[in-house]
Amino acid sequence: MKGLSILGSTGSIGTNVLRVVDAFPGRFEVVGLAAGGNVEVLAEQVARHRPKVVSVADAGALERLSRLVDLSGLRAATGREGMVEVATREEARMVVASAVGAVGLVPTYRALEAGKDVALANKETLVMAGELMLAQARETGARLLPIDSEHCALHECLDGRRPDDVRRLILTASGGPFRDRSRESFDRITREEALAHPTWRMGPKITIDSATLMNKGLEVIEACWLFGVPPARIDVLVHPQSVVHSMVELVDGTVLAQLGVTDMRMPIQYALSYPEKWDAAIPGLDFTRAMRLDFAPPDRSKFPCLSLAYRALEQGGTAPAALNAANEEAVAAFLDGRAPFPAIPESIQEVLDTEPRAAAPALEDVLEADRRARERARQALARCAPARATT
Amino acid sequence: MKGLSILGSTGSIGTNVLRVVDAFPGRFEVVGLAAGGNVEVLAEQVARHRPKVVSVADAGALERLSRLVDLSGLRAATGREGMVEVATREEARMVVASAVGAVGLVPTYRALEAGKDVALANKETLVMAGELMLAQARETGARLLPIDSEHCALHECLDGRRPDDVRRLILTASGGPFRDRSRESFDRITREEALAHPTWRMGPKITIDSATLMNKGLEVIEACWLFGVPPARIDVLVHPQSVVHSMVELVDGTVLAQLGVTDMRMPIQYALSYPEKWDAAIPGLDFTRAMRLDFAPPDRSKFPCLSLAYRALEQGGTAPAALNAANEEAVAAFLDGRAPFPAIPESIQEVLDTEPRAAAPALEDVLEADRRARERARQALARCAPARATT
Repeated sequence: MKGLSILGSTGSIGTNVLRVVDAFPGRFEVVGLAAGGNVEVLAEQVARHRPKVVSVADAGALERLSRLVDLSGLRAATGREGMVEVATREEARMVVASAVGAVGLVPTYRALEAGKDVALANKETLVMAGELMLAQARETGARLLPIDSEHCALHECLDGRRPDDVRRLILTASGGPFRDRSRESFDRITREEALAHPTWRMGPKITIDSATLMNKGLEVIEACWLFGVPPARIDVLVHPQSVVHSMVELVDGTVLAQLGVTDMRMPIQYALSYPEKWDAAIPGLDFTRAMRLDFAPPDRSKFPCLSLAYRALEQGGTAPAALNAANEEAVAAFLDGRAPFPAIPESIQEVLDTEPRAAAPALEDVLEADRRARERARQALARCAPARATT
Repeated sequence: MKGLSILGSTGSIGTNVLRVVDAFPGRFEVVGLAAGGNVEVLAEQVARHRPKVVSVADAGALERLSRLVDLSGLRAATGREGMVEVATREEARMVVASAVGAVGLVPTYRALEAGKDVALANKETLVMAGELMLAQARETGARLLPIDSEHCALHECLDGRRPDDVRRLILTASGGPFRDRSRESFDRITREEALAHPTWRMGPKITIDSATLMNKGLEVIEACWLFGVPPARIDVLVHPQSVVHSMVELVDGTVLAQLGVTDMRMPIQYALSYPEKWDAAIPGLDFTRAMRLDFAPPDRSKFPCLSLAYRALEQGGTAPAALNAANEEAVAAFLDGRAPFPAIPESIQEVLDTEPRAAAPALEDVLEADRRARERARQALARCAPARATT
């Protein structure tokens, strides 16, 4: 039995991780669960899996949780310290890092520091502090496995190949709901339109990131760190059917691709079972029916977030952390109705233009860059939002 | 420098092998060249590469060759014995088996017996005597590498993976020129129509095999032997664009695919350089332009050759050799205008129905089955051809 701690257990990834755990009885022991404020779902998870440690956002959430489920005999904690406790609990051999956004950064770092293998669904962690994370993993020998379907595909295509044999990584992107929408009407995009992803069912933050293509930009940064490939050798292709999850071009011109159904349980199972392979718990691709796959280069002028991510990656240091922070603020503002869709790239660009670049020798520098970028992003959003809202 | 002997050096594969050799100066030494009667092309190859041994079909061809190129200082031979000499020449570390049809069987076997690595473009060798070939390769430790683009793709997707992790091999097929043609008009298919392959430029025999889907059937048999996967776990998908060269489904439901341009130099380079990877000598896939890929199950009732191949593989023993012999006779008859297109599967089926199945403990049994099947195929073709020609 592999001891498992899950950061963000009530979210889209976390609940799917527990479905995979349920599909393979006897393989895993759920050691720790950390969530934010969704205590109803967490209470069910606690009752079913009886972890050794559970953590929620704050004392209020813990109070509500304790009214829903018997917490006797298990350690209950709150806040970032609680997440760190879940992430570093002795019995956990693997930590699933699926908390959304920057909040997962420190607990994930501590998990690597404690030598835990990390299955990483929280891409912000690598975007903000890829260099630090990789260095920490190398130091303790912890394994860093991606849960993103694209990086799972790259990981599988690269597995066992020599780095020198790789010419290029090609991340596929569904293109989001606005692939065929005219740029002129981007001002009028509603929250509901942006949340209607064509192929994947995911949480709201990542769904908006898919609509702006920032998700793909963050994935380029993530791939750069995970696989040690420079940005100039990472490309993005729009592939609306989301069947090919990503590709690797080798120096001799052959291209390896990984295909699969659009169900997060697939990359989750891959990461949780690696290096083993277990019989699939869900049906695979149906080749008995005709299938059409399309590929095309992305429209970078229509979706500037993609180029902004490349730019931040090339700037290096704290620039990707600033990009990520500005994006989180912008997406939150859009979801709250405080900013129109085009304000997302505009405010991020303003942050990248004005924030001083700095090296990121420690986690504190990253967190400081994150704080500064958020503040500047909020200022930018406050300025541009009302102006747009009146058009 | 890797010593290289080429069986069938003047054919479609052989000439491409020499183009790959030319693209990587200093990597190969051409040790032996064997051809049939195309002495004009062979003379140029001899002049350019100055092999140690050269072989042609017969004394007449040798006489013509000697008038075109200076053969002094090199060993010249003829017939099957000449091919065997080329295949087993001491300085050769690898033998490219690209002679078309059953003629390559014995020389390829002798190459494996002599411990040479074999790059196999002659699929008939494995179709006729897969078990014997594999046993021989195991005995001497010779490596058997496929040059077929489909098997190259499977080889690359399977490389480094555990056999237990593989659920299924999926061979892709262009579907040939008659994919969308109505079955009722198959009687009127001309030689020229059948030779117009939509995606690959190949020799006439394999082009007709692609039009009947027998090529895919032979490839299923070849894959079964090369990769040790039973026929029930090998599938075929029609993929008209021929970009995905084949796929492997793993037990956890992920599917690995190899993509590439439709140029035989790619699988040739793969086989000649394996396990190394060399920078491509030709341009790869162009992802800057929109690309569409289609997949659909094959129409087995319209193309009965595919099911005939599965049937022969399941019968085992000498049945695949009989299938191959009957097919070679039928294709020759069609190309000569002696039989209509539908007579190809009809005559093969008659041979499979009537030929006694036997075990194939030695190469002689295979050759005997080949002889018998050819005779019966000629009888069948002689009967059905005139009857059809009058319709």
